[in-house]
Order: sequence, then C-alpha cells, then structure tokens
Amino acid sequence: MTTTSFFSIAFGIGTKNNKGDWLEVYYPAPLHQPDSGLVNAITDVLGYKGGNQALDLDKDQLEPIALALDAIAPDQSDIIRSMASSMQPLVVTLLETDSALSTTPEAYLKLHLLSHRLVKPHGLDLSGIFPTLPNVAWTDQGAIDLSELQQRQTEARLNGRVLEVSCIDKFPKMTNYVVPTGVRIAHTARVRLGAYLGAGTTIMHEGFVNFNAGTMGESMIEGRVSAGVVVNSGSDLGGSASIIGTLSGGNDIVISVGEGCLIGANAGLGIPLGDRCTIEAGLYLTAGAKVSVLDSNNQFVEVVKARELAGKPDLLFIRNSQSGSIECRTNKSAIELNNELHAHN
Amino acid sequence: MTTTSFFSIAFGIGTKNNKGDWLEVYYPAPLHQPDSGLVNAITDVLGYKGGNQALDLDKDQLEPIALALDAIAPDQSDIIRSMASSMQPLVVTLLETDSALSTTPEAYLKLHLLSHRLVKPHGLDLSGIFPTLPNVAWTDQGAIDLSELQQRQTEARLNGRVLEVSCIDKFPKMTNYVVPTGVRIAHTARVRLGAYLGAGTTIMHEGFVNFNAGTMGESMIEGRVSAGVVVNSGSDLGGSASIIGTLSGGNDIVISVGEGCLIGANAGLGIPLGDRCTIEAGLYLTAGAKVSVLDSNNQFVEVVKARELAGKPDLLFIRNSQSGSIECRTNKSAIELNNELHAHN
Amino acid sequence: MTTTSFFSIAFGIGTKNNKGDWLEVYYPAPLHQPDSGLVNAITDVLGYKGGNQALDLDKDQLEPIALALDAIAPDQSDIIRSMASSMQPLVVTLLETDSALSTTPEAYLKLHLLSHRLVKPHGLDLSGIFPTLPNVAWTDQGAIDLSELQQRQTEARLNGRVLEVSCIDKFPKMTNYVVPTGVRIAHTARVRLGAYLGAGTTIMHEGFVNFNAGTMGESMIEGRVSAGVVVNSGSDLGGSASIIGTLSGGNDIVISVGEGCLIGANAGLGIPLGDRCTIEAGLYLTAGAKVSVLDSNNQFVEVVKARELAGKPDLLFIRNSQSGSIECRTNKSAIELNNELHAHN
Repeated sequence: MTTTSFFSIAFGIGTKNNKGDWLEVYYPAPLHQPDSGLVNAITDVLGYKGGNQALDLDKDQLEPIALALDAIAPDQSDIIRSMASSMQPLVVTLLETDSALSTTPEAYLKLHLLSHRLVKPHGLDLSGIFPTLPNVAWTDQGAIDLSELQQRQTEARLNGRVLEVSCIDKFPKMTNYVVPTGVRIAHTARVRLGAYLGAGTTIMHEGFVNFNAGTMGESMIEGRVSAGVVVNSGSDLGGSASIIGTLSGGNDIVISVGEGCLIGANAGLGIPLGDRCTIEAGLYLTAGAKVSVLDSNNQFVEVVKARELAGKPDLLFIRNSQSGSIECRTNKSAIELNNELHAHN
Repeated sequence: MTTTSFFSIAFGIGTKNNKGDWLEVYYPAPLHQPDSGLVNAITDVLGYKGGNQALDLDKDQLEPIALALDAIAPDQSDIIRSMASSMQPLVVTLLETDSALSTTPEAYLKLHLLSHRLVKPHGLDLSGIFPTLPNVAWTDQGAIDLSELQQRQTEARLNGRVLEVSCIDKFPKMTNYVVPTGVRIAHTARVRLGAYLGAGTTIMHEGFVNFNAGTMGESMIEGRVSAGVVVNSGSDLGGSASIIGTLSGGNDIVISVGEGCLIGANAGLGIPLGDRCTIEAGLYLTAGAKVSVLDSNNQFVEVVKARELAGKPDLLFIRNSQSGSIECRTNKSAIELNNELHAHN
Repeated sequence: MTTTSFFSIAFGIGTKNNKGDWLEVYYPAPLHQPDSGLVNAITDVLGYKGGNQALDLDKDQLEPIALALDAIAPDQSDIIRSMASSMQPLVVTLLETDSALSTTPEAYLKLHLLSHRLVKPHGLDLSGIFPTLPNVAWTDQGAIDLSELQQRQTEARLNGRVLEVSCIDKFPKMTNYVVPTGVRIAHTARVRLGAYLGAGTTIMHEGFVNFNAGTMGESMIEGRVSAGVVVNSGSDLGGSASIIGTLSGGNDIVISVGEGCLIGANAGLGIPLGDRCTIEAGLYLTAGAKVSVLDSNNQFVEVVKARELAGKPDLLFIRNSQSGSIECRTNKSAIELNNELHAHN
C-alpha cells in the first residue's frame, strides 16, 4: 500500500477478558502522522489494505516488522522486538483517518495521542468513545473484567492477599500509560488517560483533569479541569475551583481559560475566560449571573449577563462583600467599556 | 435449632493481628434473611444454640457444612469448600437478630449487607459500630495492626520494597470487599464499605460516599454523600457539593435528596430536599438561612427559613447575583405558596 | 569530636537512580537533639569532623556503630544491625545545626522530624527544600527516576503486570514513611511527608495536609491545610474548606486557626483566626473582605476589613442570607468592640 498521509499507527500490549474481548491497550510509543516510508514498511509486512483497524499481532510477525524498521525507525524497532517476550496479547492499531471510533484499541490509541501531547484537546474525532471503552476494574493485578472480579478477589483473600481495586471506570489513570515530561501530579488517580498536560504543569492533590482537556503550558492546577476544558499558559486554578465542562452542563460551549488568569480557591467558572482575568476565591460565576460592570474608577457602568463578558481580557470578578452583588472590575474607562459591551461579538 | 426468621449468616475470610484479634473480615456472599432450611443445615453442624455470634471456623468443619448445603444452596457450598485452601483465618457470623454490634466480624457483616444492596441505609441497627471497628493500616500486604506497622515498613524497605499504606482508618474502601453491578467509581478510595450504590450510579473522582448512605438508582455523584444521607434516583450532585451528614452537624435530622434533583458544583445542602429541586452552583443552603420565596411570576411572597422548605418539590434555590439575597423560585402561584408555607408540616 | 548540642542524626535506607543520585530516604527512627554521648559514639566510628553531611554507609561500618550504641541506645542499635541485610543503599545523615538544606537525605530527614512530631511546623530551616527534593515517580516498585520510568512500565506490561504510578512529585505521601500514633487518615495520598498531625487528628477523605503544616491536637480535618498553616487543638475543618497557605497567596502571613474553631464545609479562610471562631459553611473570608461587625445585640457597629479581625477570639462570620453582606457577630458590647477594633494591634 502507498500512502501520502496516514493518521496514526501504534504497537500495543493489552489485556483481554476471558471471552477474548479487549479491556485496555498500552502503547509505549504511538506514532502520529508517521511518514509514508514507515507506514509502507509496516503495512507491507502486515498485508494491510487500508481503513481503520486493530489487528491482533502474532509473535512471528514481530521480527519481519522490526527488520523493516531497523534503518528508518530504530526506536520502534527496539520496542517491537521486545514484544517477543510478552505474556500479554499484542495489537497493532492502524488509523488511516481520524474518524469515529469503533474498537477498544482505537479508543485507547486516541487517548494516548492526547496524553503524549501529539494532538491537542478538541483535535480528534472522539465520537463513539463511550461505547468503545468497556467499564473495567483497575487493580494491582491489572485490568479485570467486572464479571470475573468477585472470583479473583476471593482467590486473592484465600491466598492471604487483597486484590486492590482502585478504579471501576471506562477511563484508566493517565500515569499508568503516559507520563509526559516536565509535570508534577501529586495524586495521579485524578488525571484520566486522554488528559493533555503542558510542560510546566503541576497538578496538586485537589487537582483533576478529564480526558480531551488540559493545560497548554505552565499552570498550577488545584481545581477541576472538566472534559473539554482548556487552560492556557500561566493560569492557575485554586483548590476545588470548578470549571463547567462539556459533559456537565456546559453543553456545546467549550469553556477555556485564557493566559495569565487566576481562578481562586472554591470558585467556579461557567464562561470562557479571556487573558489575565481573575475570579475571587469562593465566587461561582455562572453564564447567567447578572454582573455589575465597573470602570477603571470603580464607577458603575451597567449590568450584563456574565456570558456577555466571555473571552474579554483583564477582568476581575468579585462578589462585593457588603452589597452581595457580583461585580466585574476593569482597567478601562466607562466609554471604552460601553463600546465593548455593545459591539457585536 | 429451629427458626422461622433469622437475620443474617455469612462465611468469611479475615485477618487477625499478632494478639489474635480480628482486624477485618471479607464475606464473599453474605446471606440476608436466609430461609430456615438453610439456617438449620448450618447451625446443626455448628452446634449453634442461638444469639449473635462470630465463630472461628476450623477447616474440618467446612466439608460437613458444604455437604449439608449442596442440595439447597450450591453457591454457598462452593465458597465454603474453597475455604479449605485458605491461608487466612476463617469465621462464620450468625446474627439471629439485627441488634447492637459487639464484635468486629458482626460489624463487617452489616457493612457488607449495605454494600451488597441487601439492606438500605438506615435499615440496620449500627449502634456500637465505632468501638467494634479497630483502627487499621490498610496496605498492599493487607490489613495490619498499627502497633505492628513500623516494623513491617522497615522490613519491606530492607527488602527493596515499600509497604504501601493507603489508609489508616476504621472503615476500609468498599471495592476491596464489594463491587455492586451497574456502577462506575472513578476513584475507589472515596467510597467506604457500608455505602449503598444503586444500579446506574457513577461516582466521579471528586465524589464520596460514606457508610450507611448512598444512592437509590441512577445518579452522577461528584460531591460528598455524608454518613446517613440518601440520594434518590435521577438526582445529580455536582463537583465538591456538600451534604450535611448525621455525623457532621446534621444531628438527628436525616438529610435526603428527592428524585430528579440537581445540586450544583460547590453548592451545599443542610435540609432534606424534595423531588425535582435545584440548588445553584456555589450556593450553600443551610437550614437556618433566610430565603425569599418567589411565586411563578417571580413576585416576592415572604421570607422563610430554609428548613421550612424541607421536602417540598419543584424548588429552585439561587443567590440573586445582584441583591445577594438567597431566593427560592417555584412554579406555584402566590396563594398556593402561602397556603403551603403556613400549613402544619 | 565533642559536642554539647547537636541538631539531628538518623540512619536511613534509601533509593538511588541509575546515575547514583539519591531519590528518597526512609529513616526508621530519626533522632532530634540527641545527647552528646550518643553523638560521640557514632561520630567516633565514622571519623566525622562536624558540619551537615549525608554519608553513604558501608555494611562493614554497621556493627561497630551498633556495638558502640548497645549500652546507650539499644533501639538504634537494633535498627542499625538489621540494616546489614539491606538490598537498598544506606545513609547516615548528621546535622550539626539546623541550617539551609543542601542534599536530598537532609531534606528527607527534616520532613521526617516534622511527621514524627519531633519539631513543630515553622520550627525548622527548610530553605532549599525545593531544589534538594528531586521530582520522582512513586510506584508500587518504589521510587523511580522519571527518565527510567517508561522502560520500567513497558517491562512490567510485557511481564503481565502494570507499574502502578501513584504520584509524580517532589514530596511522597507521609504514611509510607511515618504513621504517628493516635490518628486516622482515611485517604493517605493527601497527606505529604512533612505534615505534623497531633494525636487525636482524623483526616477524612477530603482532608489534605501539606508539609510544614498540620494540627496540634484533636481535630476533624475534611478540608485543606495548606503549606505553613497550623490548626490548633479542638478545631474542625469542614469538607473542601480552604485555608490560604504561604505558597498559595498568603505570602509572609502565616495563617493559623485558634483552638475550638469551626470552619464550615466549602468555606475559606485568608486571615489568622482566633480561638472559638466559626466561619459559616460556604463563606470564603479573604483578608480584604469588608465585614460588618455586629455587637452582642446584633446591632451594627462598623465595617472593617477582615484582616483587622485576625486573631480575635469568639467571632462568628456569616454572609447575611438576605442582604448578602458579610457579617461578624460577637458576644461583646458595641463599646468593647469599638475599643478593640481601634486599639493598636
């Protein structure tokens, strides 16, 4: 097969349940938009004819593929050779195009691409991800099918051990698959595979990042980056700060946080936020909240709904501690503000 | 012994400390209100004469009990036979009645009954549970007595390992004992044994469920279901949402959430909530808060304490973003509202 | 060497990366201000001449040191002898003085001193702690250098296991090093080594304690005790309650909570709090908030910034649920209050 633009290829080590269905796949080094020489070297050996497929790999296929890659991709070659010793089932997943998901190995590959920073949030077609990801028991003995769990727990107990069941979910934790460079994650159970963490990100114990969401650069994250949310460089999220996500009330509006923002502890955000904005600790700013806009002299200009302030820079949101009113303070004059608020945007 | 109504029987595999005291018991398949034939088959072999007892099981007692159950309860029979290979101490716990707890195996049995959905929250006599549950180190080598912990850690280190101590508590995590069907629990450390999770429940990473508390059916739980709290079907709890529990300020009032409710992220609840109610994100509704009640035309009717609105359906609670006042909006006329608020309830 | 006052000595078992750099050190029984006889017995064998040093220990040094300590410190002697079987590298860390940190073993020793309750928060010179603590992958196979992690994960997968990566951070969890007496910690991932937990402390699942911070005695902690924060005896912190720390906006002001305080669920605190104060659930009290002070008759006295109320006892902070104004209620007359507020403090 000859190709000019191929979406992704990855060799994986996975887990199947007793019925032979995939539960999860670990890809040590997935490839995004590999060059055509590499694609052809692999597909020639596999006899692959195109389309999006996850193919079970036999061990006797490994050496021919490794040989074909020795000269052009020695890192892949090494990994593929090491798979000859695998006690787990092997898979090669070939995605000619980025289209809707139809198998578990494909879904895992796309989650890997995000966490390896090969694709940014919203950069992938993730339709079909919920049905293609089985609900799995994540344990210290690996992924276990839920129907096989009770017996495994009883066996472990009889043997004087405990089967540690740390998660019952469709999504595993990211760090058992991918640990990107330049990050700290104080408590890894709170970052799902499929999160995108920019270099310079610290996720503290109270931080959380869902799949298809994340940080673009330096950030101190002590609150919740919900599915679909993007936090830009230099912005911090205080403890228990909440950002409404696409799966939790935000619907079609993608919430993002601009650069250099500070969302205080126990605060919340229901609108996309512009650059250098601050939300006071404890204030939940929903899209429908009525906000008193003040100019650079702290003079009242007018009341608008928070969603009308979406994306505007240099705003400070507080709840006036005496009047109880939500206020937005700016560094702009009343005239500038009026013009901005009534421009079409 | 002949009995007509027996409360519970269960065969367990447990852990004892160096002094021979029980630290914990795992019951693979506890029985609630077993029929009298089954009870008699077991108690005849054991020579049990009645009362609530936890009896250490010798391995030579297993086969006679299994034989007696082969015809009437083959599942139990299989489990009992498998116990012959146990490296851990075995116990059979017989609770003729549901009364105050006096031993560790009894306490563990009642927590299992809740998590196996055999009894609903508030359906058991749990008095004595704190003194009967020892404070235990939960580790990757199982339950360890706190006085034996330091030596075990040092031994592990000398052997090039780390003794992973994940919890120091009276209550273990539920999923190492019971995983009910039809649930997802993204981070299992936050659901205690004794939680009741209805089918269709998803506990996200920020969710928490204490013992003797839980969900009755479909729910998305991203907040804290405190001890004693019941969330009814179709209700969602936003991230970091707080519900005051019986152990944390709620005292004798049991807080429940009706069906089809939404408690927003970072919100809080200090009263029992009726069906189809909503609490805005970020609003903490304590029982003593003074609430402005508005009718279906958004006209002010009167101010009442939140506790007077306990259990009433179809209410929307918000903090007015301009006046700072807590408001309750309804779909009722002013006259209907007045009648309801001043009825004896 | 003769000494009259020595700061700390400890024998440790640690982990090094492939380059031979320390990743972490576990000290089973660190000594704080050991008496001079003990110091001399150790330093004589080591040929140590003074200063703050972390010395790699050879196994043939162990028995001479143990012998020298048999009569004067048999507990240390036992530990040192047991180290002869160690599969991990050994270290003895000698801190003549409490001064800025320069090596990883020193940093770990100071964190141990805090968690063993040998020194209280703010009682140590911790300057240099961030550069001396490497960012480490904390796994079920122990501490792993980040550059060695991916290969270890792939090897584990090929062998049918998962390398469980629970934390990527400079600070490990406390309980894998130190478990002080008289505490419960429902979810240990949220208490860092270097936390100080007084006897009688319960850290619930939502609780968090950073290093150089903690509780002085009985406390129920369900919120976040940030770096540098001290909570005094008899004070409770509700679920998701936030306290601004020295690393997160509090700057030079050390936030403490007096005795007998209650900080409600989802509340927040940005000032040092005096004894017997209460902050209502859901109220975030920042230092700059304008607060209406009411006297014992609930009569308005004046408006002050919250920081002016720092350290004063017997205050109740609420947000008036009708006016939206933050109020501080006291048990004092208007005249007493006026005098206090206008005294120099």
